[in-house]
Amino acid sequence: MKRDLLGIKQTSAEDLLAILSHAKEMKQIVLSQRKRIPNLSGRTVVTLFYENSTRTRLSFELASKYMGANAANITASGSSVAKGESLTDTAETIDRMGTDILIMRHSMSGAPNLIAPLVKASVVNAGDGMNEHPTQALLDAFTILEKKGKIEGLKVAIIGDIYHSRVARSNIYLLTRLGAEVSVGGPATLLPVGLEQLGVKVFKSVHEALVDADVVMCLRIQLERQKSGLFPSVREYNRFFGLDEGRLRFAKPDAIVMHPGPVNRGVEMSTAVIDGAASVIDEQVTNGVAVRMSVMDWLIGGLEK
Amino acid sequence: MKRDLLGIKQTSAEDLLAILSHAKEMKQIVLSQRKRIPNLSGRTVVTLFYENSTRTRLSFELASKYMGANAANITASGSSVAKGESLTDTAETIDRMGTDILIMRHSMSGAPNLIAPLVKASVVNAGDGMNEHPTQALLDAFTILEKKGKIEGLKVAIIGDIYHSRVARSNIYLLTRLGAEVSVGGPATLLPVGLEQLGVKVFKSVHEALVDADVVMCLRIQLERQKSGLFPSVREYNRFFGLDEGRLRFAKPDAIVMHPGPVNRGVEMSTAVIDGAASVIDEQVTNGVAVRMSVMDWLIGGLEK
Amino acid sequence: MKRDLLGIKQTSAEDLLAILSHAKEMKQIVLSQRKRIPNLSGRTVVTLFYENSTRTRLSFELASKYMGANAANITASGSSVAKGESLTDTAETIDRMGTDILIMRHSMSGAPNLIAPLVKASVVNAGDGMNEHPTQALLDAFTILEKKGKIEGLKVAIIGDIYHSRVARSNIYLLTRLGAEVSVGGPATLLPVGLEQLGVKVFKSVHEALVDADVVMCLRIQLERQKSGLFPSVREYNRFFGLDEGRLRFAKPDAIVMHPGPVNRGVEMSTAVIDGAASVIDEQVTNGVAVRMSVMDWLIGGLEK
Repeated sequence: MKRDLLGIKQTSAEDLLAILSHAKEMKQIVLSQRKRIPNLSGRTVVTLFYENSTRTRLSFELASKYMGANAANITASGSSVAKGESLTDTAETIDRMGTDILIMRHSMSGAPNLIAPLVKASVVNAGDGMNEHPTQALLDAFTILEKKGKIEGLKVAIIGDIYHSRVARSNIYLLTRLGAEVSVGGPATLLPVGLEQLGVKVFKSVHEALVDADVVMCLRIQLERQKSGLFPSVREYNRFFGLDEGRLRFAKPDAIVMHPGPVNRGVEMSTAVIDGAASVIDEQVTNGVAVRMSVMDWLIGGLEK
Repeated sequence: MKRDLLGIKQTSAEDLLAILSHAKEMKQIVLSQRKRIPNLSGRTVVTLFYENSTRTRLSFELASKYMGANAANITASGSSVAKGESLTDTAETIDRMGTDILIMRHSMSGAPNLIAPLVKASVVNAGDGMNEHPTQALLDAFTILEKKGKIEGLKVAIIGDIYHSRVARSNIYLLTRLGAEVSVGGPATLLPVGLEQLGVKVFKSVHEALVDADVVMCLRIQLERQKSGLFPSVREYNRFFGLDEGRLRFAKPDAIVMHPGPVNRGVEMSTAVIDGAASVIDEQVTNGVAVRMSVMDWLIGGLEK
Repeated sequence: MKRDLLGIKQTSAEDLLAILSHAKEMKQIVLSQRKRIPNLSGRTVVTLFYENSTRTRLSFELASKYMGANAANITASGSSVAKGESLTDTAETIDRMGTDILIMRHSMSGAPNLIAPLVKASVVNAGDGMNEHPTQALLDAFTILEKKGKIEGLKVAIIGDIYHSRVARSNIYLLTRLGAEVSVGGPATLLPVGLEQLGVKVFKSVHEALVDADVVMCLRIQLERQKSGLFPSVREYNRFFGLDEGRLRFAKPDAIVMHPGPVNRGVEMSTAVIDGAASVIDEQVTNGVAVRMSVMDWLIGGLEK
């Protein structure tokens, strides 16, 4: 039985905790001058990205290389995708070339779930439409654990466009599962209905969501969504929902501030907050590589050894 | 004297058989969990593709990495090509950086033949215009050998746009050389004149070409060729020349079905045939990596050892 | 204290000479069949190019791979840059993923100077606007040393669009520092004022600049600059400033001819000169890889061992 990481939702707590625990060791590799371990030596990792990304793709690529894998990248532009090949045919082709781990990002929710049963390779969801982005949630949880020593009982506020955010969705699944109390705040048009059933407290003002938060997570605003009518202007968004130093005072004095990046400076967060003492955004980037190394080691059964 | 693989036509039968034979061993590597052998260790392989391709480029890239080479990719977009540098200057530049094997695809027939005498690197033709695509023919022959145990005396039917197909041309050279009886069928406007001189039987209907075939090879239809006037509509093509289960019954009961990929589902083949028991399309993909590893080992003299 | 290579100007003569000296050893690696040494093993090199380039990017990529580094490429198209992330945020993100050496090219003069203090990685300027391209100057100096045995006392003529050329600027800094006598010639509109203060002799005709030159360096003409009004037509440029065999006779009989590539054949140089006995253009390409290996070894302190 092969393993996949399609989402937080369908992964067991035991597996998620094993990944988080092993990531500590992997982080030591990322921070060292000898970023090369043999755990994926002779294995093949291919990234297949149908949406642009620097950080996630590079994070997976470097994670693969740090573990000694044969690593290759496919992006939608300049590939057979332009020739109109179906996603399943593309994935099966990559699979048949000796691929052990297929990292995929697709604008269609559920794309990795469609592919996983068709391929021998382990599939990692690197973001599917508005559904999930599980490695982002894992790196966020790892960062919280590192800074706060625990997740259980913490109050986490997630601010922004919850509706379209796969980052929010994966984080809500993971953090509530690990015992955090999650509040969300943002424009009413961007808060999905039924969020309360996931165990989340929903606020239409940022202030209320932030009260006594241990962790503040801002989401990236997709500026192209402004045309949709769901969205205020950038200036208005910043005024009512942007995180500045004033608003941050509603959170606990030792709260940490997170963002999945890339940040629209001056839109979802002020520059003072992004670069301030509470910000752990840079740390999240390093942790992303460590967590992805850990995920890949888990996929090939390396955590049982 | 360096070696090149510019086409099937100018390569000796002895060399072609040596490559096919060595590919068996290479396939074991592709199928294993330790896809890393030292045969190209310290050598440099650069792909230079002036036409889009996922599968061929990735196949060569992974083949190089499985053999421990320093591997790099150049695609026409985003390169000096945009600055108007000539093909020969680009190839000579890549050559001078320590490149041992230059894999090139170009829309101009004969481009690799132009480059090979100018560079120290061994040149592999990964497809040149309407001329040849020798590694595709080698992987097809390898697949036939694997499935049928021989090539001599087999009846191979090639269906589709023979005129524009470098895959057909390389296959006709290789299969007739190895003793197969090759029939071709397709739209009359897409059958080149003089094909009989290559020892091929030409049929204007698919049915006749398929009769008693051991191997059926469908070619990819370039949908953009429809504007040329040589080409029926997609619907008409499928109706008269597409391979479905009914038409496949004209071939032998144990015939295998091949396609170089990517397939236009429902155009040159029906989904039932693509995914059916006779199809070896997925196997061709794996064999492509194996054959390319074998070709590169042959280029550097590794098959003599 | 980390090291950066931001320009020739701010790098000490001692360091520049150490890089040039070590490059000799590195060139033996590039010319060998075992292009793999452990000097950057476990280190991470990322290229971040905001301008198209085949040769410089590939040269750095192969140099990294020849030294065993984890190497990855980011180009502006298909990256977060499209999402509007700032250069500093992009660079800091790459830095936080374990990057040891960040190679960057940017259209903005001074971009690497902006980034270097913000990142832990060593920054290499691979070309910034109209400012510097230090590895090009180093490979040019290395080539002159190889061919002429010295730089001190040599007469070097640089021909072309001096005003826009970071190659010219870096070469002028390096060659004058190492004791060469530098003359420049080109269209009057493309000769910056104040060049004499750098110790350079300025001529408006090519003939005068070439007289008794030991080394002739032609610059690439950016054809897109013709719209600016600063520039004659291509035909006129070639007629008045192009290097052909006739003009080359003004230089010393044993003069060598250089070009940073890619060459516009028939514009800045005639084909007879490009491919003639005096040309060392191909050699420059090989030396580029060697010098970049040497630079990276210097950055991590490998030249002190």
